[in-house]
Amino acid sequence: MATHKILLLPGDGIGPEVAQEVAKVLAWFTRAGIAQFETETDLVGGAAIDAHGVPLSEAAMDRAKAADAVLFGAVGGPKWAGVSYAKRPEAGLLRLRKDLGLFANLRPAICYPALAEASALKRELVEGLDIVIVRELTGGVYFGEPKEIVTLEDGQKRAIDTQIYTTGEIERIAAVAFDLARKRRNKVASAEKHNVMKTGVLWKETVTKLHAEQYSDVGLEHVLADNCAMQLVRNPKQYDVLVTDNLFGDILSDVAAMLTGSLGMLPSASLGAVENGTRRALYEPVHGSAPDIAGQNLANPIAMIGSLAMALRYSFGLLEAADQLESAITRTLAAGTRTRDIAGPGTNAVGTTEMGDAIVREL
Amino acid sequence: MATHKILLLPGDGIGPEVAQEVAKVLAWFTRAGIAQFETETDLVGGAAIDAHGVPLSEAAMDRAKAADAVLFGAVGGPKWAGVSYAKRPEAGLLRLRKDLGLFANLRPAICYPALAEASALKRELVEGLDIVIVRELTGGVYFGEPKEIVTLEDGQKRAIDTQIYTTGEIERIAAVAFDLARKRRNKVASAEKHNVMKTGVLWKETVTKLHAEQYSDVGLEHVLADNCAMQLVRNPKQYDVLVTDNLFGDILSDVAAMLTGSLGMLPSASLGAVENGTRRALYEPVHGSAPDIAGQNLANPIAMIGSLAMALRYSFGLLEAADQLESAITRTLAAGTRTRDIAGPGTNAVGTTEMGDAIVREL
Ligand SMILES: CC(C)[C@H](C(=O)O)[C@@H](O)C(=O)O
Ligand SMILES: CC(C)[C@H](C(=O)O)[C@@H](O)C(=O)O
Repeated sequence: MATHKILLLPGDGIGPEVAQEVAKVLAWFTRAGIAQFETETDLVGGAAIDAHGVPLSEAAMDRAKAADAVLFGAVGGPKWAGVSYAKRPEAGLLRLRKDLGLFANLRPAICYPALAEASALKRELVEGLDIVIVRELTGGVYFGEPKEIVTLEDGQKRAIDTQIYTTGEIERIAAVAFDLARKRRNKVASAEKHNVMKTGVLWKETVTKLHAEQYSDVGLEHVLADNCAMQLVRNPKQYDVLVTDNLFGDILSDVAAMLTGSLGMLPSASLGAVENGTRRALYEPVHGSAPDIAGQNLANPIAMIGSLAMALRYSFGLLEAADQLESAITRTLAAGTRTRDIAGPGTNAVGTTEMGDAIVREL
Repeated sequence: MATHKILLLPGDGIGPEVAQEVAKVLAWFTRAGIAQFETETDLVGGAAIDAHGVPLSEAAMDRAKAADAVLFGAVGGPKWAGVSYAKRPEAGLLRLRKDLGLFANLRPAICYPALAEASALKRELVEGLDIVIVRELTGGVYFGEPKEIVTLEDGQKRAIDTQIYTTGEIERIAAVAFDLARKRRNKVASAEKHNVMKTGVLWKETVTKLHAEQYSDVGLEHVLADNCAMQLVRNPKQYDVLVTDNLFGDILSDVAAMLTGSLGMLPSASLGAVENGTRRALYEPVHGSAPDIAGQNLANPIAMIGSLAMALRYSFGLLEAADQLESAITRTLAAGTRTRDIAGPGTNAVGTTEMGDAIVREL
């Protein structure tokens, strides 16, 4: 049986709590003889700053490169608000994305029928919602140079960020979106601001060309990012796959996630290019480190456990195990087990560890 | 009686239709002897491209500079999709904003009780919603240089946009937000991405400093733009005044507007600095040119007429007339008069001109 190398990076806030539950699930799969994992754990974000003075040590970076998949919790919190820009907790995550070449961030936004009531939107608008945001993750304003603050002669400061995209960067993320759409409802919406941004002009032009040349069987719609944000609120079910740049993807995927009412349940995958039949990958919950509820056994571990299911499927080729895990999650929810974030008013909520135990029991 | 100089720029799509209804209201105020207007009309956007080959003629720009206020409809549409970047319809609007120095864009998001049902959100989340987005409008990625597409040696293209903010630009927009909050519920939320962008770092630092030095009586909260988009969906009433940069403001104000269920009803004001007791100003509906319903007498003119009410109040000092106009709009709605966008299923809808006539009748 092949051994799959996992690097677990719990991070900060509720990260370690939800990572603990993933470790339980991994242990179960090993005990059951279904798969074999070699799991290493390391620090990232604030936890790494506290230990090493940097948000990701070189050793951790090397381990990430050597792993078949990275399972990432969450980073950041008020404790590190004063840390310099270069060493802030988020820099650890951004370095992982950049240095592992994880250009394709897949963020499903699924509304679980049992939880449709938890959405801020009217039930009929979100019930059955199932869209995927494909976000470019290693380019754009996140990494472009110059990126600096300079002090001018009159004492004023001037800050600069640079958004850069090349044809190739746009083509490869658009191809991910088109390929994914073919396995789904065969529709892609591409969001940019070509009416204001040159990167938007190139984005639209490149997606249009790739579509005509290689994916004309897939439906394609162009939408301005501001209008797209509106449409997500007005009628999210109109979309299937939504492809966009790093910054718009950050915002639009958060809107989409919030719509589902299931923020604590949404996993995500960040994938690199396929090389020699494998691809680098990092899996993380869509939610953040939630410092306000950290350490209280209140967090919902389902987004993190669902991220493991994505890893089983996309990185390890363990399709059956992935199905098994996802249906264990579904059965646990169907049995009425709820953490606080998804418990309706007046219903009983379980803690993080109890939810993890319940899912393992269903396995 | 002072004469107020207005430049009316109807623009494209439904722009001319809603502008026509504003003209009716202006005529009524003149007939009633309440105020005197000198109204000129000119072309902008696609209409100006068709007539002059540019989205804003020099003559129109001069008229805008000479006016006490510009009333702007909407620009753009599929007809001009092939026009070069420099001459696209939107460039007319962007030039007006930049050359008139309209750095402060005020976008109220109000949920009219009678229309709360039209929101995608559950009624209790939006009923009574009353927030204002204060968007920086003459800086950021909209205007920073370099902004270009270059062809590389290997035939690939590279597109660049540059986001720039100086201390002074941030201070003046933050001051607008704090001043406005003092007249409202005394709370400001400032949205940026300081965890990823240097402009976000400078933004947060500058707002914090200005607050400590001059506005410590106002509540201040910093929120990441992606989280802010989520919070707007989850619980919009937590906000009072929300200040943010040009690009985030574009998206967040559209989300906020859509939440209200009253997109066709929301006016906006774009204001310059106060100089010699006056300030340049442009007023426009939040909605766009809606080419799909243009020319069919279907558009809701209330956002445009409400924009005139803002002009009466902020540019002409006609506070009573502004109140009078706003209460005429409220009474018209209360009487059940509805254009198609706000008519509930099964209720009767009136056209653009009928809505305008009804409001004039209430005056
Ligand atoms: C933590 C932060 C740097 C990150 C981002 O902005 O990409 C987060 O918001 C996300 O969406 O993964
Ligand atoms: C028309 C377009 C250039 C404009 C913008 O992006 O600012 C519009 O979306 C707006 O919000 O006023």
